[in-house]
Amino acid sequence: MRQLVILGSTGSIGTQALEVAAALPDEIRVVGLAAGGNWRLLAEQVRAWKPEVAVLFDPTHFAELRAEVGSTSTKLLCAMEGLLEAATWPGADVILGAMLGAAGLEPTLAAIEARKAVAIANKETLVAAGQIVMDAARKNGVTLWPVDSEHSALAQCLLGENASDVFKLTITASGGPFWERSRAEIAAAPATAALKHPTWTMGRKITIDSATMMNKGLEMIEAHWLFGVPMEQIEVAVHRQSIVHSLVSFRDGSVKAQLGAPDMKLPIQWGVLGGARAAGDAPTLDLPTLGTLTFEAPDNARFPALGLARAAMRLGGTAPAVLNAANEVAVQAFLDGATNFYGVTDCVEAVLNAHEVCDSPSLADVLAADAWARERARTLIE
Amino acid sequence: MRQLVILGSTGSIGTQALEVAAALPDEIRVVGLAAGGNWRLLAEQVRAWKPEVAVLFDPTHFAELRAEVGSTSTKLLCAMEGLLEAATWPGADVILGAMLGAAGLEPTLAAIEARKAVAIANKETLVAAGQIVMDAARKNGVTLWPVDSEHSALAQCLLGENASDVFKLTITASGGPFWERSRAEIAAAPATAALKHPTWTMGRKITIDSATMMNKGLEMIEAHWLFGVPMEQIEVAVHRQSIVHSLVSFRDGSVKAQLGAPDMKLPIQWGVLGGARAAGDAPTLDLPTLGTLTFEAPDNARFPALGLARAAMRLGGTAPAVLNAANEVAVQAFLDGATNFYGVTDCVEAVLNAHEVCDSPSLADVLAADAWARERARTLIE
Repeated sequence: MRQLVILGSTGSIGTQALEVAAALPDEIRVVGLAAGGNWRLLAEQVRAWKPEVAVLFDPTHFAELRAEVGSTSTKLLCAMEGLLEAATWPGADVILGAMLGAAGLEPTLAAIEARKAVAIANKETLVAAGQIVMDAARKNGVTLWPVDSEHSALAQCLLGENASDVFKLTITASGGPFWERSRAEIAAAPATAALKHPTWTMGRKITIDSATMMNKGLEMIEAHWLFGVPMEQIEVAVHRQSIVHSLVSFRDGSVKAQLGAPDMKLPIQWGVLGGARAAGDAPTLDLPTLGTLTFEAPDNARFPALGLARAAMRLGGTAPAVLNAANEVAVQAFLDGATNFYGVTDCVEAVLNAHEVCDSPSLADVLAADAWARERARTLIE
Repeated sequence: MRQLVILGSTGSIGTQALEVAAALPDEIRVVGLAAGGNWRLLAEQVRAWKPEVAVLFDPTHFAELRAEVGSTSTKLLCAMEGLLEAATWPGADVILGAMLGAAGLEPTLAAIEARKAVAIANKETLVAAGQIVMDAARKNGVTLWPVDSEHSALAQCLLGENASDVFKLTITASGGPFWERSRAEIAAAPATAALKHPTWTMGRKITIDSATMMNKGLEMIEAHWLFGVPMEQIEVAVHRQSIVHSLVSFRDGSVKAQLGAPDMKLPIQWGVLGGARAAGDAPTLDLPTLGTLTFEAPDNARFPALGLARAAMRLGGTAPAVLNAANEVAVQAFLDGATNFYGVTDCVEAVLNAHEVCDSPSLADVLAADAWARERARTLIE
């Protein structure tokens, strides 16, 4: 039985994690929930799951939450202090880090230092502070279980293999809603078009990242940190069907791939169970009638985000944190209609170019670079 | 450094194994070679590789072999006695079993009893005597390393996984040269057409097995014994490109696949190295430009061999040995023009129906059933 705390329980990953837990009552017990600002859904979840602790990060409506579920046995907390308490909760043995954006960084580090198993769905944590997080994991003997479908696929393919035998990691990309459109068409497309993802149902921010392919840039950086593979040995292949979730090539010419229905419940479950397998409610594939799978090279001209991610990794230090923070602001601006599609990557590129990189940054340096990049991106967009 | 004996060194697998060894001189040393009847090529190999021992199974031309290479330092042996000595050679630590047909059975068992690692390319060994071979391997603590590309793929996908988590094994089939033809066209096709395999370069017997899809029937049985998975959980998918070599589905809905160029050197190397990976000369795949991979359900009406293999496993005991032996004779008859394409599976079916199954057979029972089936098949074809 795994005692689970979900940081980000009202988001896309969090709600699916609760479906996973509901399907495996003998394997998973939910002991903690934390939401960003959606206090109504958090209150519902507290009533349904009766966790030991529940946290509302944004304290604005904490009084309403208390009025709703203050009389239950669940301890109610708020703000970063509350997140940190939930992330290190004594009764928990696995923390699912599924907060949006940079807010997940500190709780994830706290969970690692408390020697909890960490299932990591917040890719920004590793993008912004990969060296710090991986150093902490090594120091504390903690395994990070990836929850992104691509990194879960890579981790599954690496089971029983030696890291020194890896020749290349290939992250698959659906290509998003714009793969078949020209640059001019893409430039003119509104956010509503970018939100129509062909294969995956995800949150709004990550769906836009999928349209720009910045999600693949962030995933290459994440894979670098998780698996210790140099960026030059990490590539992206466009695979429209989202059935093959990623592939590992070995130095003898062998390639292993992980496949599955495009459903996040499978990697969430695998991560939360620490690599154990159980018959949950993730759908299965009927292989003999699978049909056609296609693979194409990415297109840097129409989708410049991959190149930006590689540039950020070459710059090193705080540059990936800046890439991520500028991207968050620019994506929000695109969603708000304040910039167009290529305005997102243009903004990220400009912020990256203006950044003075801090090598070997501390957590404070990373948070400062994140704040600086957000401010700069906002200024640029205005 | 692996000290290797190749049983079947002049065949398709054997000659490719020597190419693998030539590419990895620091990893593999060839200490023994054994051929069926091709004494001229064996003599060449003895001169090139200077093994400690060389065996000619068919003694007809043993005198010629001795005249050619009798003065070298290589010990020359013949007949089954010679094969058994090479299979248990004191200086060897891995035996590659690549003899054609049932001749590989006794040497493979001898190698297992001498606690050599066994790389098994002779699928008939496991088909005919799976229970006996697997019992011997367990008793002697010997790992069998599959060399068939499909079973190598399955073994690679199972690394680091629990056998109890396996939901299904899916063996891929190229479909062979007749996949796009009607039953009438296939029935009228000569052996020369069946020998034109679309993706793999292999020996003649296995190429015909690929056209009838009996090779997939034999591979399902082999997979059952190697991985301990019931036949009902083993299926075949037609995958024309021969890039995905097989797949394992797990009970959580996750699927792992192994991919590679259609080149036997990769699985030969992986098997001979006992699962270690080295940069040999097997070609690599360029994943982002891989193009299209297709998967289709098999067609039992045009290719009845899969159903026959399942029937043989349901009958159990000596029935799979009979399936294999009758098939060998019938394929030879087809190659000789003595029967047509569907004559092969018709013959196998008739012999299987006439067989009185011996349950829990000894090795002698298996060999007797094999001999009976060959005789019966010959009579039927005449």
